[in-house]
Amino acid sequence: MNQQETAAESARLLAKMRAARPLVQNITNFVSMDIAANVLLAAGAAPAMVHAPEESPEFVRLAASLVVNIGTLSRTQVESMEVATIAARAHGTPWVLDPVGAGATRFRDEAVQKLLRHRPIVIRGNASEIMAVARGAGLTLETARPRGVDSTNTTGEAELLARHLAHHCFCIVAATGETDIVTDGTRMIRLANGSPLMTRVTALGCALSALVGAFIGLGEDPFVATVAALATYGVAGEMAAEVARGPGSFRVEFIDCLDRIGPDDLETRLRLG
Amino acid sequence: MNQQETAAESARLLAKMRAARPLVQNITNFVSMDIAANVLLAAGAAPAMVHAPEESPEFVRLAASLVVNIGTLSRTQVESMEVATIAARAHGTPWVLDPVGAGATRFRDEAVQKLLRHRPIVIRGNASEIMAVARGAGLTLETARPRGVDSTNTTGEAELLARHLAHHCFCIVAATGETDIVTDGTRMIRLANGSPLMTRVTALGCALSALVGAFIGLGEDPFVATVAALATYGVAGEMAAEVARGPGSFRVEFIDCLDRIGPDDLETRLRLG
Amino acid sequence: MNQQETAAESARLLAKMRAARPLVQNITNFVSMDIAANVLLAAGAAPAMVHAPEESPEFVRLAASLVVNIGTLSRTQVESMEVATIAARAHGTPWVLDPVGAGATRFRDEAVQKLLRHRPIVIRGNASEIMAVARGAGLTLETARPRGVDSTNTTGEAELLARHLAHHCFCIVAATGETDIVTDGTRMIRLANGSPLMTRVTALGCALSALVGAFIGLGEDPFVATVAALATYGVAGEMAAEVARGPGSFRVEFIDCLDRIGPDDLETRLRLG
Repeated sequence: MNQQETAAESARLLAKMRAARPLVQNITNFVSMDIAANVLLAAGAAPAMVHAPEESPEFVRLAASLVVNIGTLSRTQVESMEVATIAARAHGTPWVLDPVGAGATRFRDEAVQKLLRHRPIVIRGNASEIMAVARGAGLTLETARPRGVDSTNTTGEAELLARHLAHHCFCIVAATGETDIVTDGTRMIRLANGSPLMTRVTALGCALSALVGAFIGLGEDPFVATVAALATYGVAGEMAAEVARGPGSFRVEFIDCLDRIGPDDLETRLRLG
Repeated sequence: MNQQETAAESARLLAKMRAARPLVQNITNFVSMDIAANVLLAAGAAPAMVHAPEESPEFVRLAASLVVNIGTLSRTQVESMEVATIAARAHGTPWVLDPVGAGATRFRDEAVQKLLRHRPIVIRGNASEIMAVARGAGLTLETARPRGVDSTNTTGEAELLARHLAHHCFCIVAATGETDIVTDGTRMIRLANGSPLMTRVTALGCALSALVGAFIGLGEDPFVATVAALATYGVAGEMAAEVARGPGSFRVEFIDCLDRIGPDDLETRLRLG
Repeated sequence: MNQQETAAESARLLAKMRAARPLVQNITNFVSMDIAANVLLAAGAAPAMVHAPEESPEFVRLAASLVVNIGTLSRTQVESMEVATIAARAHGTPWVLDPVGAGATRFRDEAVQKLLRHRPIVIRGNASEIMAVARGAGLTLETARPRGVDSTNTTGEAELLARHLAHHCFCIVAATGETDIVTDGTRMIRLANGSPLMTRVTALGCALSALVGAFIGLGEDPFVATVAALATYGVAGEMAAEVARGPGSFRVEFIDCLDRIGPDDLETRLRLG
């Protein structure tokens, strides 16, 4: 998709998501619960934070999608994530994995590898998290790069590993940062919107994963849905940064902008990287 | 109570609550902790989030009231809610039940029915939660409607079940929504303030239950106290909506309005439904 | 240090902290997670909320400092705090104890006394929490006051116990309130900035403990580092209160001010008490 097509598809899916108001179940970290729920509500989806293993698989049947985030992991949460993702797979409910802090401790890395078996539709993290997940799955730049590949290839390590991970897991991989990338292993889109203020508010990455959940609940191509979620988020961030005076007011304006952003904002503002 | 009496009583209790600064203990969900504590502080009460079963019953002795909210339930939380509500009953500490998501999973429904045995003074939820609690207690429209009742009765199903539940549990039932209703099984008040923006910020219902806790800690008629809490909340929401530009700024303005709202705001703005 | 020296040292450490961007690990309560992480980010540090006993000691090796806060204590959290503070001591990682609600329940008091064995570098609480910790350690005004001390001594009970506790634990004690005090048992500084609005937003004390963590991670004299954290916080609070319209907008402005505050704000505004 070129820039215009990406903007048009994102605009279409934003309108569709708002009309559908998908129920997004989150098993997520305690830092992000408030902001993730508010991001979903502002953008037009319906959040549910349901995480006990006693009920998380049962609740999956009510949800359009499931978002699993390991930011403040505990033994019980791992248990709950496992039974919920198994239920999601059984019901055909798409689910997103946010591997927060992957690479920092064995506990996280083991949880991620366990969860990958239950087949997320999207993995969303920052570049170093995505690289840690890929390495945990045994992927390296050597296995990523087909023999004989043009050695003048300037694609960064993160892009190569993201693509490799997407291939390996048959899923979409989104690595967000100054430029966001989304790949299904073959297609690759780079999104250039957003604002440095987005890194100065806690859990905005986690809340983005929740929004990806809202878009993949629509039953469309998950690559396009993931791009649409990231496009909406980045453009809203840019709009908010134009009026914010610091990270505190940015957070407030950002929620207002997620409520206010319309298809034409995407069409006039979206930029590919 | 007519509109003027309701406003006058609510204004009186708001002033009394602020003078008393009641300590409200919350065993609540992780999404609402921040906003519920800030709502209590802004309105003039003192929040405490104390939820471990090792200390929750001991802490009850220090608290003016207890609020129990099942939004992000876990096995340990159910255990803690049980021992704390038993302690509350033993000490004569009034407590509020917020049955978030009742009807969605068996785990929640079982927890609610278990907790009802320890006698909440108020049950506060949205209409579908209240109806789920009533049905879980074996109540139906058939048992609710006295035989021979005027069939032109236009009272909605929620009101009938709310009234029935209040009778059944000897407690106040508040079902909030576009119009809020409060009933003790005999009396019934409908409050018409508020703003649609209140449904666009996460956990504002949970935070209202916390505020009900602040008002029932005063030792007055819990029906009137519940009405006063809902009246304060709805009027503050209306005041905030007049200046908000979206759900993000609404949340900020709402907290400011809960701090600023005075008896005369209630007297000039309160509307019965 | 006189007022000018205190301001100059605080300004120097604020600049140094921002340049170092220390990673602060928090095992903290669920109410404060959002605001504590946002305070750290706004001030220029990097927060991590990592609390499972399975990973908290491993993560300590990555962190510049550790902050332990008992606000919403659970059995698992106590376990995690123990293994993490043991690891912190073994690695020479400085750690801060925030004894929220000390004195309210035996569960808290026992946890505090257990944790004191692993040697916090700073204990930060409000006056009554500090006094409860001191009493739990067997300290009293009698043991605090050397026999024959001038009976016209007007120093408050909290100051005496804080100093005594600092001596007893070989650590810095900070008791915050209208005037904040910081002592290492010998030195004592009183800081007079801040705003009453700071008590109207939940968990701002907890978030201050997190910021103390950021400053003690710099490897400087922990007494001066603690003073610098409190000075930055109080001056930012004062700046925010000048533009806030209530506790909701204060919270937003406060985060903006923590981002904006510079060395000269400290030099022109800092006041000793």
